[in-house]
This record gives sequence, C-alpha cells and structure tokens, in this order.
Amino acid sequence: MPDRLKIIGSYLSPYVRKVLACIELKGLDYEIDPIAPFVGDDRFSRLSPLRRIPVLIDDDLVLNDSSVICQYLEDRHPSPTLYPADHADRARARWLEEYCDTRLADVLVWRLFYQLGVKRHLFGEDTDQATVRQAREVEIPAALDYLESQLPDEGFVFGTLSIADISIASFFRTAAFVRYAIDAARWPRCAALVAQVQALPVFDKLARFEDCMLRLPLAEQRAALLSAGAPLGSDTLGTAKPRHGLRRE
Amino acid sequence: MPDRLKIIGSYLSPYVRKVLACIELKGLDYEIDPIAPFVGDDRFSRLSPLRRIPVLIDDDLVLNDSSVICQYLEDRHPSPTLYPADHADRARARWLEEYCDTRLADVLVWRLFYQLGVKRHLFGEDTDQATVRQAREVEIPAALDYLESQLPDEGFVFGTLSIADISIASFFRTAAFVRYAIDAARWPRCAALVAQVQALPVFDKLARFEDCMLRLPLAEQRAALLSAGAPLGSDTLGTAKPRHGLRRE
Repeated sequence: MPDRLKIIGSYLSPYVRKVLACIELKGLDYEIDPIAPFVGDDRFSRLSPLRRIPVLIDDDLVLNDSSVICQYLEDRHPSPTLYPADHADRARARWLEEYCDTRLADVLVWRLFYQLGVKRHLFGEDTDQATVRQAREVEIPAALDYLESQLPDEGFVFGTLSIADISIASFFRTAAFVRYAIDAARWPRCAALVAQVQALPVFDKLARFEDCMLRLPLAEQRAALLSAGAPLGSDTLGTAKPRHGLRRE
Repeated sequence: MPDRLKIIGSYLSPYVRKVLACIELKGLDYEIDPIAPFVGDDRFSRLSPLRRIPVLIDDDLVLNDSSVICQYLEDRHPSPTLYPADHADRARARWLEEYCDTRLADVLVWRLFYQLGVKRHLFGEDTDQATVRQAREVEIPAALDYLESQLPDEGFVFGTLSIADISIASFFRTAAFVRYAIDAARWPRCAALVAQVQALPVFDKLARFEDCMLRLPLAEQRAALLSAGAPLGSDTLGTAKPRHGLRRE
C-alpha cells in the first residue's frame, strides 16, 4: 500500500487549488501541509528549488510546478480524465492552462491579490494603487477579452470538465478574495464558465478551507481547518518568517 | 494530404530551438517564418496573444507555448518518443523542461544574452554590467548547481534522448551566442550533457541556420538561410519595427 499523496501549499494559491481540484476529482487519498503563503524554511527550499508552491510528494517522487503535477496525476490516475482526448483540444486545453498560469497570474494574482491582500496584510506594506488601477482598467479587461474569444456560449470549454476550466476558475477564485468579480454583461462567457465551475462540489469544498484561512489569524487556522474537515498532515514547514520569493508554480 | 507544419519564430530563441529539434527528430515536414526577435506586426499579435515565439500552425490549429507545442507533437506523432514512458520519469522530464523555460530563461537569456546581445545590437542600449556580473557569479552557478544534482554521470538524463536533454541544451546554446560556456571542472555532468546533445546531427543542422542569423545583417539573412537549406516559408510577419515584449513561450 503506497503512502497517501502529500501536497505542500496554501489553500489561497490558484496553483495549489488546480492540483487539489484534480486530486479531489480523481478521488485520491491525500494530506496537505497548508504552508502559509511566502513562508517556508530551508527544508522547503530543498523540496522546491524555486521556492514555489504547490509541491507534490508521491512516495519517493517530489514534484514541482502545478502543470507538471496535474499532468502527472492524469498519467498516473487517468480516471476520470481531465484532459480532452482529441490531440488538438488537449493542446488547446494545455495552452489555456498556460495562459492562466502566466497571464492571469500576472494580472489577477500579482497586480491585484498581491497588492490588495498579501502586501498589505502579510508584509504590512502599502498597496500600489496605480498598479491596481492599471490592472482593473486595462490588463484584466484585455485578458478577459482574449478568454471570452476562446470560450463556448455555454458549458465547459471542451464539453466535459477539463484542466482548462479548472485553471480559469482557480485564478478567478483567488481574485475574488479581494472582491474582484467578472462583469457578466461585458464578458458573459467568462462569467458563466467561472460561476459554473466554482459551483461544483469540489470547488465548494475547497472554498470552506479557504474561508478558514481568510477569516482567521494564522495561529487559529489549523484548528479551524481540522474541524472543517481539511486533510491536514502532521508536519509543517511553515515555521520561518514570511519572506518574498514564493512565486508562481 | 495535410499542409506542412508552419513555425513562426527565430532560430536564436531557445524556445524555438526546442520545438524545431522535436520536429526534426520526428522527421516531420515543416516550414519556418524566421521572424526576427522582438519583431512582429498586428497579424503576429493575433496568432500569439502574448506576443511570444514560437507559434505552431498545423492546418487550422494555431498553438502557442513551446512546452504545449512539444507535447502536442509527441501526442500527434509519437515516434520516436521524446518523453520517458515511466510516469515518474516523464513528470521529472517535464519539470526539468519547466526549470529551463523559467529559471534558465531568466539567468541565461534575460540576464545574459539579452543584456550582452539583444539590448546592445538590436535596441542600441547599454548593457547593465551589474546584472551580467550577478548572473555570471551568482545566479547561473546556482542554477548549474541544481542541474548538476539532477543529472546522471553520463548519457542522457533518462537513458534515451528526451525533452529534458533537448531543453537544457537549447538554453545553453543561446547562452553560447554571447560566449558563455559551462565550466566542466566545476559542473562536469552539465558540461558533458550539453556537449553530447549539441553534438547531435539535429543541433548541428540548426546551428548552421543560427550562424547565418548571427553573422549577417537582417537584410542578408534570408538568402543565406535559403542557401544553407533552411525550410523558409514564403510569408513573413517580421516587417514591423522591433519592439519590446516578445518574451518567453
């Protein structure tokens, strides 16, 4: 009997959320070390050479990068499939995932969530309002314009739920932590897709754990997560002082 | 009979080199629009929403991102295989590719090749010597230390040639354009792997085309590439003034 999967990473990260959604949808046994964002000691650096989350530990395999991890989970546990069977669709799904991991990450996570949430509350630094304004008025609309051109009128992007849907919804969930919502009148396809995916039981379940972290100080989160049913591991790497440098994966 | 594959992208880009190496190794029919780095008009923006190279056009499929393209080529044309069969090895190969695409890109392409080559010769701007010094003395050695810990004493990373070997060699080839060479006494595995891969006929063939672009002014490159046997397409998107923003893919 192999060990259960272990994930290191915060419930607040869209990259961690992608991986957890895949693990939950595939019904795999796992535990999580919900390391706080931007926290992690030297043991963490050894597991994640770029100091990024999530990290997957599967027996003696230690994996970095959410896209690599999701594809590994698909290879290893192909049912239910989360990548389209058609080669062209599968490639387009991976491209949409990459678009989220880079462009949505830039505009939603680093220019919005980081500025309005992490920078202020974790590091005690001022928000750069010009960056936030440029993101809200120019960069996020441009990204939504592109996504809107790629999405269907209704349903999931490739018919059945795939990594593309999971990725898009994961990033907009982190943006919602700082009260960003898609204007459904301007981008109806994007708004409908995100609402549909975030209404799935798996996203609803993860949202309960995310809420524990958002609402409570660090010292109270572990107990709250446990009573909400989060599969916490016994170990934690999150003992060091927060520091910059835990970026995208 | 489907159209031949079309690639848009410069021979000098490590991301383009990865894709061309896969196409050549799989023996596929293709043509290239060798768009100059940082050049590209609005038609290019429509094909590549993030204004990155390479772009693959396969009939009516337009694909961005070198990792997505290489995986698509593997799915569509599985022989010879360039991804390890074992799930864990395949995941590790993809991780090493990602490490190259992000970390080697930062330190070898953006802090070295861009500063010493592109910025000076294409944009007529000064090299930031402090950035180059930090890259040479601290950041590149740190990346090589990590890679050295991941590579075997001899041979390819996973026994037979894979996307991991192709990626590592592709990035160090672009670094070589500004005379960077790995210190074989300090990082013997990295130096041996890169030398072994770059000695393959496919890298040798691509190097002839790269040399045309390095040695000649833009106006003379097309004729030189044609006489060197490069499969140039009839169209070109590279008519606009160079501008910043054509980054990694």
